Amino acid sequence: MRFLTAWLIIFGAVGSAFANAQETPRKQPNFVIILADDLGYGDLGCYGHPTIHTPNLGRMAAEGQKYTSAYVAASVCTPSRAGLLTGRLPVRSGMCSSKRRVLFPDSTGGLPASEITLAEALKPLGYITACIGKWHLGHLPPYLPTRHGFDFYFGLPYSNDMDNVSRKGREAILHPKIEYFNVPLLRNEQIIERPADQNTLTRRYTNEAISFIKTNKDRSFFLYFAHTFPHVPLFASDHFRGASRRGIYGDAVEELDWSVGQVLQTLRDEGLARDTLVIFTSDNGPWLTQDLHGGSAGLLRDGKGSTWEGGMREPFLVWWPGHVPAGRTVHDLISTLDLLPTLLTLAGGHPPADRDLDGYNVSSLFLGTGPSPRKVMFFYRGETLYAVRNGPYKAHFITENAYGSDRKRTEHHPPLLYNLDHDPSERFDISKEHPDVIAEIQKIAEKHRQTVKPVENQVEKRSRK
Amino acid sequence: MRFLTAWLIIFGAVGSAFANAQETPRKQPNFVIILADDLGYGDLGCYGHPTIHTPNLGRMAAEGQKYTSAYVAASVCTPSRAGLLTGRLPVRSGMCSSKRRVLFPDSTGGLPASEITLAEALKPLGYITACIGKWHLGHLPPYLPTRHGFDFYFGLPYSNDMDNVSRKGREAILHPKIEYFNVPLLRNEQIIERPADQNTLTRRYTNEAISFIKTNKDRSFFLYFAHTFPHVPLFASDHFRGASRRGIYGDAVEELDWSVGQVLQTLRDEGLARDTLVIFTSDNGPWLTQDLHGGSAGLLRDGKGSTWEGGMREPFLVWWPGHVPAGRTVHDLISTLDLLPTLLTLAGGHPPADRDLDGYNVSSLFLGTGPSPRKVMFFYRGETLYAVRNGPYKAHFITENAYGSDRKRTEHHPPLLYNLDHDPSERFDISKEHPDVIAEIQKIAEKHRQTVKPVENQVEKRSRK
Repeated sequence: MRFLTAWLIIFGAVGSAFANAQETPRKQPNFVIILADDLGYGDLGCYGHPTIHTPNLGRMAAEGQKYTSAYVAASVCTPSRAGLLTGRLPVRSGMCSSKRRVLFPDSTGGLPASEITLAEALKPLGYITACIGKWHLGHLPPYLPTRHGFDFYFGLPYSNDMDNVSRKGREAILHPKIEYFNVPLLRNEQIIERPADQNTLTRRYTNEAISFIKTNKDRSFFLYFAHTFPHVPLFASDHFRGASRRGIYGDAVEELDWSVGQVLQTLRDEGLARDTLVIFTSDNGPWLTQDLHGGSAGLLRDGKGSTWEGGMREPFLVWWPGHVPAGRTVHDLISTLDLLPTLLTLAGGHPPADRDLDGYNVSSLFLGTGPSPRKVMFFYRGETLYAVRNGPYKAHFITENAYGSDRKRTEHHPPLLYNLDHDPSERFDISKEHPDVIAEIQKIAEKHRQTVKPVENQVEKRSRK
Repeated sequence: MRFLTAWLIIFGAVGSAFANAQETPRKQPNFVIILADDLGYGDLGCYGHPTIHTPNLGRMAAEGQKYTSAYVAASVCTPSRAGLLTGRLPVRSGMCSSKRRVLFPDSTGGLPASEITLAEALKPLGYITACIGKWHLGHLPPYLPTRHGFDFYFGLPYSNDMDNVSRKGREAILHPKIEYFNVPLLRNEQIIERPADQNTLTRRYTNEAISFIKTNKDRSFFLYFAHTFPHVPLFASDHFRGASRRGIYGDAVEELDWSVGQVLQTLRDEGLARDTLVIFTSDNGPWLTQDLHGGSAGLLRDGKGSTWEGGMREPFLVWWPGHVPAGRTVHDLISTLDLLPTLLTLAGGHPPADRDLDGYNVSSLFLGTGPSPRKVMFFYRGETLYAVRNGPYKAHFITENAYGSDRKRTEHHPPLLYNLDHDPSERFDISKEHPDVIAEIQKIAEKHRQTVKPVENQVEKRSRK
């Protein structure tokens, strides 16, 4: 009876959104997106890491799909998250910059109100929405999650290494203490703790996530659960600190794995497993210049900050018992840009038609009923298109190592060309053998560039001190 | 009734070997060891490869154990196999050489008759034994599998790139034809085909393996199934050629994966799954200098021929439904050197007591009842000890890149030191921080060296032309 009542409420509220409900699932699924921070392609057991023990993510993969060519929208935090939540490349929203890379505590910009986030688009379809964890799309009031479609927010507004008040530089990262980083913890729009106790952050995020799920189990919900770790400085709760073989980096990842297990078990316990699509991925590749405090891209080249594969290809798991086929490794291309159109479609809605979208509806891929419609991936660094993948081929117009390390920017004429299916580590340039492939990619790039209009840059805006 | 008869025959034949049968399983398990050739740590889906599709090995891992710190006895073929089959480091049997590395068609040496192979040791316990695939422990009659405890042999006596009669050098590897490689195919001690049709080799090996299992399903059997691929030159049967995303290398690995699936399915179909312990691993790391015709060590450093991790750490799967716990990732140390004492113990026998053994009985690890007794691993290149691992720490006394690439031999005083749990890619030397750890490893190395006695070198013996 309660179930029926809930349905009536939802239908009553968003009746018009169900105009063509014949194409949609009988019941709207719930959505949970779990995002790690700076986790590399090679950092999970099911992606080959030898000493980080991640049995919960392994089980999630075994019960769902494990993707091997899943890309994020950018190789650093702010633009990657802007892309995920809007389904648009960050160059369209002004959320990327080669000068500042990401938003900082002195930034005055953020995701523009004109952008439609996944949360905003799901709300008229009857969803209750929560953002738990790191935001990093603007920390001033107009840009907070609560102003972008989230009914509830609990987390840090930006990276956990910002507000470094220690004057210890790198030492503060290698041997961190809570008081070194004056990062605020927010509930909705209020700072409730500063500095945030980062030791207990993953555990508290998880408790909030579980509480949100239990509280809203009778209605459709969207939980965007963006972990703070394994971004430096690394912390873990008492139970996990010192527990992994991989050192503090492993401790943080293993606590994250535990957290995923808690979320999935809550869904099972509440009878919501078959009604909830869960995605796990990360925002960008490993921060290699953090040495052992950074992760591993496995066999992929380079890491965070670069447009080599290690910077933008990520672990990506999809779980939805009874809907997503179990135990499948999927080699098709997919991007976090695809989440907005896909989830909106599964919810019975439509992606916004008044703007350029860079995402595809990949629901048939999730459901195991068809291949990915995505054949092309664009690799931006800041506002500049560095590389394009078309099918198995990736052409690099410009290469540049991850920031912090040897930053050699090189323009390539002709572009470097790799067959990523044959050569996932990008070792063997085959540009000379395939001028036709390069010509096609250049056409794709040119056509794409014409769709990109100048917008106000949000990342470069800052307060004057 | 047939079962009872079989048992009576076995007990009758080897009654004395069952003197302390109370410590052994009720029924002797069958053993199948499947060995790939030059497969790297990163080449399987369950070890993180993005485009090689290996669902059968993935299922094997899900139904059994996946090891992440499993080592072979040497980083090239001949010594690695000598170590696996004898439980002794190849330096003890004369089966390694820094001058010639492995046996060649002009070699006149081989595994000495005085060595006891796993097959030889199992035979008195009632096992019927077969070697299918690549041997590479001596191709002259005194050294063939049939002289080393195998009742049956079908395969190539050495590597598939030997007997290169093409005069095309590297071109013969990159664009191979059957007739370029005059490699013989043997059944028992007779050459039945020359050159061997390498296109159909994996399929024919597999058929022989299935036939051996079916024929001997009513008695205890040991099958040593040593694939020829993915060692270059790469071939695959019609069904697999061009079928993988990874090119011909992927085709060969995917056919190997198919073969494993066939063997496991045969065991299931014949009702032998719960009676058969199956191991899958490789002989050494990927041959990186073969470019895309070689594999990937994933996040591990270097490959075949080197004592960096990529040369000697391998995928390692253990499957025995009802005995080996399912779906476990095991981080404990293990080596192919441990197979002889472990399998002999599980069969109710004892490892030979009259010689130095380098293997441990790891049956409790397989059965999930205890940790690995192995804490130390020795890394030889030829007859020289280059490195030692003790727990998580690995000290390199000498480093040298894989042959074929930049071979810079460097002696280190003090040794380089890595914590492989923290730093599996061997990036950060911590020798200065841990002189105590180095001192302990040097003691272990010294004690070990004292057990190594001079023996006749088998690999360097050759015919004069």
